[in-house]
Amino acid sequence: MTIEQTRIMIEGISPQVDNGRHCVKAVVGDSIAIGADVWKDGHEMLRAAVFWRRLRKSEIRPGYTSGQRPDLERGQWREQALLESHNDRWLGEVKVDACGGYAFTVAAWTDRFASWRDELKKKYDAGRDIHSELLEGALIIARYRDNAEGKDRAAVDRLLATLGGEQSSAAKVGAVVDSAIEEIMDRVDPRLDLTVAPVEYPIWVDREKARFGAWYEIFPRSQGTDPTRGATLREAEQRLPAIADLGFDVLYLTPIHPIGLAHRKGKNNSETCQPGEPGSPWAIGSEAGGHTAVHPELGTLADFDHFLAAAQQQGLEIAFDLAIQCSPDHPWVKEHPAWFSHRPDGTIKYAENPPKKYQDIYPIDFETPDRDGLYNALLDVFLFWIERGVKIFRVDNPHTKPTTFWEWLIAMIHRDHPDVILLAEAFTRPKRMRLLAKVGFSQSYTYFTWRNSRAELEAYAEELFCTEARNYLRPNFFTNTPDILHAILQEGGRPAFIARLVLAATLSPSYGMYNGFELCERVPLKALSEEYLDSEKYQYKVWDWDRPGNIKEVVKLVNRIRHDHPALHLANNLQLLESSGPDIIAYAKASEDLSDVVICAVSCDPFGAREGTIRVPPELYGGGDFDAYHVHDLLSGSTWTWRGQWNYVKLDPQQWPAHVLRVSQVVK
Amino acid sequence: MTIEQTRIMIEGISPQVDNGRHCVKAVVGDSIAIGADVWKDGHEMLRAAVFWRRLRKSEIRPGYTSGQRPDLERGQWREQALLESHNDRWLGEVKVDACGGYAFTVAAWTDRFASWRDELKKKYDAGRDIHSELLEGALIIARYRDNAEGKDRAAVDRLLATLGGEQSSAAKVGAVVDSAIEEIMDRVDPRLDLTVAPVEYPIWVDREKARFGAWYEIFPRSQGTDPTRGATLREAEQRLPAIADLGFDVLYLTPIHPIGLAHRKGKNNSETCQPGEPGSPWAIGSEAGGHTAVHPELGTLADFDHFLAAAQQQGLEIAFDLAIQCSPDHPWVKEHPAWFSHRPDGTIKYAENPPKKYQDIYPIDFETPDRDGLYNALLDVFLFWIERGVKIFRVDNPHTKPTTFWEWLIAMIHRDHPDVILLAEAFTRPKRMRLLAKVGFSQSYTYFTWRNSRAELEAYAEELFCTEARNYLRPNFFTNTPDILHAILQEGGRPAFIARLVLAATLSPSYGMYNGFELCERVPLKALSEEYLDSEKYQYKVWDWDRPGNIKEVVKLVNRIRHDHPALHLANNLQLLESSGPDIIAYAKASEDLSDVVICAVSCDPFGAREGTIRVPPELYGGGDFDAYHVHDLLSGSTWTWRGQWNYVKLDPQQWPAHVLRVSQVVK
Repeated sequence: MTIEQTRIMIEGISPQVDNGRHCVKAVVGDSIAIGADVWKDGHEMLRAAVFWRRLRKSEIRPGYTSGQRPDLERGQWREQALLESHNDRWLGEVKVDACGGYAFTVAAWTDRFASWRDELKKKYDAGRDIHSELLEGALIIARYRDNAEGKDRAAVDRLLATLGGEQSSAAKVGAVVDSAIEEIMDRVDPRLDLTVAPVEYPIWVDREKARFGAWYEIFPRSQGTDPTRGATLREAEQRLPAIADLGFDVLYLTPIHPIGLAHRKGKNNSETCQPGEPGSPWAIGSEAGGHTAVHPELGTLADFDHFLAAAQQQGLEIAFDLAIQCSPDHPWVKEHPAWFSHRPDGTIKYAENPPKKYQDIYPIDFETPDRDGLYNALLDVFLFWIERGVKIFRVDNPHTKPTTFWEWLIAMIHRDHPDVILLAEAFTRPKRMRLLAKVGFSQSYTYFTWRNSRAELEAYAEELFCTEARNYLRPNFFTNTPDILHAILQEGGRPAFIARLVLAATLSPSYGMYNGFELCERVPLKALSEEYLDSEKYQYKVWDWDRPGNIKEVVKLVNRIRHDHPALHLANNLQLLESSGPDIIAYAKASEDLSDVVICAVSCDPFGAREGTIRVPPELYGGGDFDAYHVHDLLSGSTWTWRGQWNYVKLDPQQWPAHVLRVSQVVK
Repeated sequence: MTIEQTRIMIEGISPQVDNGRHCVKAVVGDSIAIGADVWKDGHEMLRAAVFWRRLRKSEIRPGYTSGQRPDLERGQWREQALLESHNDRWLGEVKVDACGGYAFTVAAWTDRFASWRDELKKKYDAGRDIHSELLEGALIIARYRDNAEGKDRAAVDRLLATLGGEQSSAAKVGAVVDSAIEEIMDRVDPRLDLTVAPVEYPIWVDREKARFGAWYEIFPRSQGTDPTRGATLREAEQRLPAIADLGFDVLYLTPIHPIGLAHRKGKNNSETCQPGEPGSPWAIGSEAGGHTAVHPELGTLADFDHFLAAAQQQGLEIAFDLAIQCSPDHPWVKEHPAWFSHRPDGTIKYAENPPKKYQDIYPIDFETPDRDGLYNALLDVFLFWIERGVKIFRVDNPHTKPTTFWEWLIAMIHRDHPDVILLAEAFTRPKRMRLLAKVGFSQSYTYFTWRNSRAELEAYAEELFCTEARNYLRPNFFTNTPDILHAILQEGGRPAFIARLVLAATLSPSYGMYNGFELCERVPLKALSEEYLDSEKYQYKVWDWDRPGNIKEVVKLVNRIRHDHPALHLANNLQLLESSGPDIIAYAKASEDLSDVVICAVSCDPFGAREGTIRVPPELYGGGDFDAYHVHDLLSGSTWTWRGQWNYVKLDPQQWPAHVLRVSQVVK
């Protein structure tokens, strides 16, 4: 038996998710910081590098490269040196320039020439006889020579000649300790003991919108002016310029499919529905079609194409709502009974959470014997809309379906369409939410709406943006949804709406609002309810988009600030700041080169004025404790001169409950 | 193609080291706390269990079971239910009752019967018709029946009859919601969707001495009375009763092999050696033999056997020093020239750290073409001494040899001798130290001697005893070594010796001292040196073991306290306490059932009296803020009545620089 021996150790590679089981997420153009613990027993000098490659189409599959040993001989690897920082930690970066899958690993080898040169020099400086060392060196250099060609080879030959020649020791040492030679030897290093980490770590690269974007959610049917019927897509188009004018990037449409009649829900979610009531758009499917059809009241597929094009002209990308569930009238119920769960009496099981019943919804039975048929049909639904130009999907309740289904589905979609973005609407327990992100969802809804005190916000922001969760989970902070009108908005009114808007839009590079937020709509279904009264989920509705008390100008301003400030486009640069006011949360975001530094101070109390001091770390203003610098409030327009680290802020809900400050560096 | 679908997710299994790449360490009798995140999409109820088994001899190998998928069908698995705590976390434990290798994994399955029963009950309570539910239940129960035998099967048949019979719904629901039936259904559960975590996590179980023991280090040759020569092993035996009387468990002998003559070091590490000087015991090997021989001046192998037996009679276990290096006179130099590195001029490379030379030492060349021969010869050296009865080895400088060598060697030793304990003397960088522990060393030397301020000690204790490092790294806190006489001892004198003794002996269940510490020996080689003047490393020496100013009574007392208090036998129960005195470190250790609670308060300032208050968490004294309880100082013998959490301590170096307090619970 021959015993394996490794001298070079490679451990603690970052970033990675569950030791390569899942992808690290990035966006096009990112330089991903790579780290590894690398060392060798003894005193020799090492070299280390990160190697990375694009994944082949066939490698875009559930699990990606997980568990795969890297083979540096095969495939197109790029290489970038890692540099030793301290405590055996080596650092470098990987640049990703296109959407799709990548994999990286780390390798290291002994720099035999430099190790020898280093010892030679020390001994020579200590006045020791170096005869034997020079003979040793010749043997080492000969190995490099075998690996060299052309001019390099000639240079190495000259070096060998010098060492073997009659010159003085001084001349020989001089010939070795020479930067030109150093360069050549690096280039021709045979890397005899190249040691490669045993795992390939996959990376998934999205386009930038997966990380940075402002979302606006609407019910297309409520975008019209006639309260007795739903608006058509053609009518809804009229709203696009106004929405674009607010500065949003993504327009999220609630489901546009035909709505079932069986057990259709009435106004305010009533079990009984009056004639002419439209029902919930999430009760998908009728004789008019299912997940690939458009509700006749909204129009035709052609109208949808037209809507898509019109939105594009306004710089708005459409996010499409996909809910994997059926109304009893969905064509699949007849065509694929095996996809639904049947009770012994032959009836199909409707959704329920005993004793609650949802008879207008049939859940899909993922235990169906026809799993392949079901999976592929669901994939086809996504592909159908992707081929029509939809590249963003908001997926309804993914946590009630098998996680491995999503892992398969997203890989299958990304194989041919790496530019598709999926937002998981999984209001579920933390670990389930995280795993959905790990298996491929580009973005996740969060608990943001329920984090309102300073302590809650700081702890949650820390968890999302400052721990390794940020390697795979991208939060999308929604201020509200058709189902979540938080008490702080109901009670706090306008100041609360503004504060929550600023928090969502500056803490997270992706944020969103459900229409009506800009109008400070805040009437709950009943006391202590988070649902809206007369929700457009269940009825026709027309809005007065200019109604008094709206905060459209603030929304517009905040969205412009987001676009103007690169620091707000990133998710891994959040820095929580010390603040003396228990209700004042303060944080900074800066671009890597510090050319753009934004500091936010937001009051978590919508009812009274709050004041205190916040601490700005010196590196953010580039000065010392007694240096002065300007901070310009991008909201109010005011400019203040601050000095040193601790400075005073006052936030009055009746004026501005928040500061968004552009920091000017101290000029030296 | 058939698509895989997993509904049950199992993640975040603990404890584990690098996802099963290395063993978690435990000792015989431990109950190892197991945790896992387990859930399934949807609302069904789950069951989970930890499965574990002993490893076969052939599985005791480098890497153990790393990367191996568990096969619950094959092998003798034991099973223990996990219980859900909160946030999808499930908890349980594994009991290990013998030395050797174990592996565990986690599995989960849907409790279909309980899930159905739960829904049935809810619907019945809500007054719903349950006809269809009962039919469903019958189908589920039939699957259980197929898996049942004898009385269980009969009971299940009765249940089915009831459900199919004419009784009232009430009677049927009653028959289902029945604890006896519940038990039977658990027992006969077919576990149709049993889901097993993909990895086996290895555990290595040592005897308790790997975790708990007090070590005492001696040079056997210095244990005599004649300053002109070294003591023999027979003479050294005379010292055993006195050492045992001090309360030590392990007697660590510096190397006892023949010492080379070539380039032998003289007094105080002088490059020139006078005739009659004994040389360093670490310059191993002469004409008299190598690593399997005893230095003639010490005696014979028979004398060593006799020494071993005598030590055993005194309750002392021998730790044997093994240094893989050779003097130029070592037999291997002639017999196995290939195991050494040769220079082009044919000479063998001695150890050096340019410009420093160590000409009395030849390092082994692990790059030798005869790797198998070398590895097996080194293994044979360990086996030679193991067969003579040595079960504890202190390994010299393991970090200068390949880590994979140690991983192989320790596995090979443990395969036949699971009771062998190895202490790594690796004073190297943190990650290298950690990896040596991961690959199998039972214990590690640490930086303890260089951690002297309260902040340093707290941070280091936190790192070692309160992070996941404790799963694989077992510190052995030495107060001093022949090479480390820290300035705090040189300058602080007796109070410093006592404080450092208490810290080492109570922070870590394994601790040790090099002889002379109990005599407060503290004369350095020169100013700012950590080496001893006239070190017995390089010369014959006799000690006056009763010399004035010794702290033998304190050593004896501390060792007795350690034995009397189970709380001090554990490594994972350290709790740092708040303390108002910047120089007073306070911490608690308690047995799991709180029957034994020890609180230590130690002054880090040997020069002046220090006072302050320390906070005792209520659970440790079992009372509230106004309850009184007794604390008895096991060192001074004093007893105080404390009240509530914050209490006063004063530490006077002239009396006692430390308290070791036994806490009496508040009697209610």
